[in-house]
Amino acid sequence: MKSVLVAGTGLIGTSVALALRERGAEVWLTDADEATARLAADLGAGTVVQDLRDAKGIADGAVLAVPPAAVAATLAYAQDCGVADWYTDVASVKQLPVTQARELGCELSGYVPGHPLAGRERHGPAAARADLFLGRTWALCPLPETSPEALAAVTALVVACGADPVHADPATHDRWVALVSHAPHLVAAAMAARLAPSSVPADALNLAGQGLRDVTRIAAGDSALWAQILSANAVPVAEVVAAVAADLASAARALADTASAASEASGASATAPGDVPDLLDRGRAGAARIPGKHGGQPRSFTVVQVVIADQPGELARLFNAAGAAGVNIEDVRIEHSPGLPVGVAELSVRPDEAGALLDAMETGGWPVRR
Amino acid sequence: MKSVLVAGTGLIGTSVALALRERGAEVWLTDADEATARLAADLGAGTVVQDLRDAKGIADGAVLAVPPAAVAATLAYAQDCGVADWYTDVASVKQLPVTQARELGCELSGYVPGHPLAGRERHGPAAARADLFLGRTWALCPLPETSPEALAAVTALVVACGADPVHADPATHDRWVALVSHAPHLVAAAMAARLAPSSVPADALNLAGQGLRDVTRIAAGDSALWAQILSANAVPVAEVVAAVAADLASAARALADTASAASEASGASATAPGDVPDLLDRGRAGAARIPGKHGGQPRSFTVVQVVIADQPGELARLFNAAGAAGVNIEDVRIEHSPGLPVGVAELSVRPDEAGALLDAMETGGWPVRR
Repeated sequence: MKSVLVAGTGLIGTSVALALRERGAEVWLTDADEATARLAADLGAGTVVQDLRDAKGIADGAVLAVPPAAVAATLAYAQDCGVADWYTDVASVKQLPVTQARELGCELSGYVPGHPLAGRERHGPAAARADLFLGRTWALCPLPETSPEALAAVTALVVACGADPVHADPATHDRWVALVSHAPHLVAAAMAARLAPSSVPADALNLAGQGLRDVTRIAAGDSALWAQILSANAVPVAEVVAAVAADLASAARALADTASAASEASGASATAPGDVPDLLDRGRAGAARIPGKHGGQPRSFTVVQVVIADQPGELARLFNAAGAAGVNIEDVRIEHSPGLPVGVAELSVRPDEAGALLDAMETGGWPVRR
Repeated sequence: MKSVLVAGTGLIGTSVALALRERGAEVWLTDADEATARLAADLGAGTVVQDLRDAKGIADGAVLAVPPAAVAATLAYAQDCGVADWYTDVASVKQLPVTQARELGCELSGYVPGHPLAGRERHGPAAARADLFLGRTWALCPLPETSPEALAAVTALVVACGADPVHADPATHDRWVALVSHAPHLVAAAMAARLAPSSVPADALNLAGQGLRDVTRIAAGDSALWAQILSANAVPVAEVVAAVAADLASAARALADTASAASEASGASATAPGDVPDLLDRGRAGAARIPGKHGGQPRSFTVVQVVIADQPGELARLFNAAGAAGVNIEDVRIEHSPGLPVGVAELSVRPDEAGALLDAMETGGWPVRR
């Protein structure tokens, strides 16, 4: 990895550039908006290239970090200018750029479509971080035409960024991200949209717990960017979202039917309507399949809850006690405490370490119930 | 608060009993399953009462911590036995028990319907904690008939448990919890259900990020319990869920239409379909209304990200550094790192403290980008 051109110096492109610079690579930067490229350069991400026409052979490889619909045209132009031997992109959909690259007659042996599963709620080069990809999955979608040399080079780039390469063909990739990323975004937005009307009073939202916060968190993302992503992966996303909508519509009908049957009969009822328990069971089964930390057994951790005062140093004291006991805290979540200066820290640990953690908490003076 | 009877010694009832015991109250326990009541007593929650017929005047007040459909009958029986002066319940729906209590001719001046917004994924007396309600909202739904004395007594009980009382009438309460708790549960289940079929390969789920984990987390709850809750609040839940389903169905159609129009025209497109940007915008607006910690300004914290090694003591070192700098960490989330022994801790702090935290991180040797 001696020399890499990054075309498109937004969050992802600049983060790739910073990561490669930390590994000692020479990085060249270009962006349709030159001020953006210059900001990235000022941040230490590399050196701006004014015109790719003057950049023949400037780099071993090029990372095209441009929007999905711009990947193919950028690839064609860069190949035309002969700037590099191999190319990859970072778009969150893969069929669209591949189809367009074929249509434009791009040279595909040097092209490895890619997609790092990393991001932030902020965007632009100022939000970039060399560590953005550390520990993240990075999908690579080599084509039948892709040469082993290009694949090896792009794999080395992914590893240099600290990410974990995973292979899939473009169509499969798009179906997978529709399921695990794009459709969940739309579902979160649809739930959160119910809270928006001014007819929903602030008092109602004061009843919200951590569950609602979790379900709707990703709905806070950039609407314009997400509209583009969803459109570029429209068919697989529509399929998943239509299935979710059908399940919800059916559950709503079942609930309404039960209620009206019950009000005709005896006033009110707590009988579970037909479809709802099945949907809840399927939901549990699905949630249990999501891998936990480090790709290990999903949801296999024991959660220890500790009440903590909301003041500087309290979490430090807690983690000190755990560390001193040799307990590795796998995850932590702080439950919010509207109106009171205390919170509950939920510490996830391996089940065989829960006892030692509880002992440590007890010794440290935290109230513990076993 | 001298003497309280707790009828129903599950998670909530036993937690109330433990909280009141810590405040020095005398607590009497009863449960349809006597072994459950005895376990609660063994945990220090109080003294078992065998038969309410022998318990006339035994307590100032009674907490009916039984399932929603059993509240009214329990209230009628306890009033018949004359066990207490005032009564409250803890069911997560309020219209059902109130309607049934009226039908059964209960004496309503001493009854304050209630609902603590607290819970755990575990249930039963063994999971109970005296601190379960600390800092949580506790809805109270006084009826037109409710006496000021009864309301004052139940309010004192709520405050003794460390919770924050909020008033609403029963119908309004049920609409609010449908929106902020019951419907989100069903929505999370419907999304998670898409991950369940064996046709979804494990590799697809390896692309999952924190977003999917958050959206589906609550779907892991107890299906049978949730089916009961949803049925007991069927009409308001059905209304919210039907609206979410309609928005999702419409978004799915818009995506499918755009895709087919685009494939007829020019091969592929990244134009945003009509309904989708609007739904995303409404979702953002709704998510922004959810209050953050301590009922303060929602989402007003600055998030500082720090890469940490996944080993005992590392988080302690981090929180020590923050505490020493006098910075109060409002929330923390650890991003998982599949396949790599590092993670990213996201620390939420007040914006005016972010600079001090970044300084402390830098001094402590963590890589910081400003």
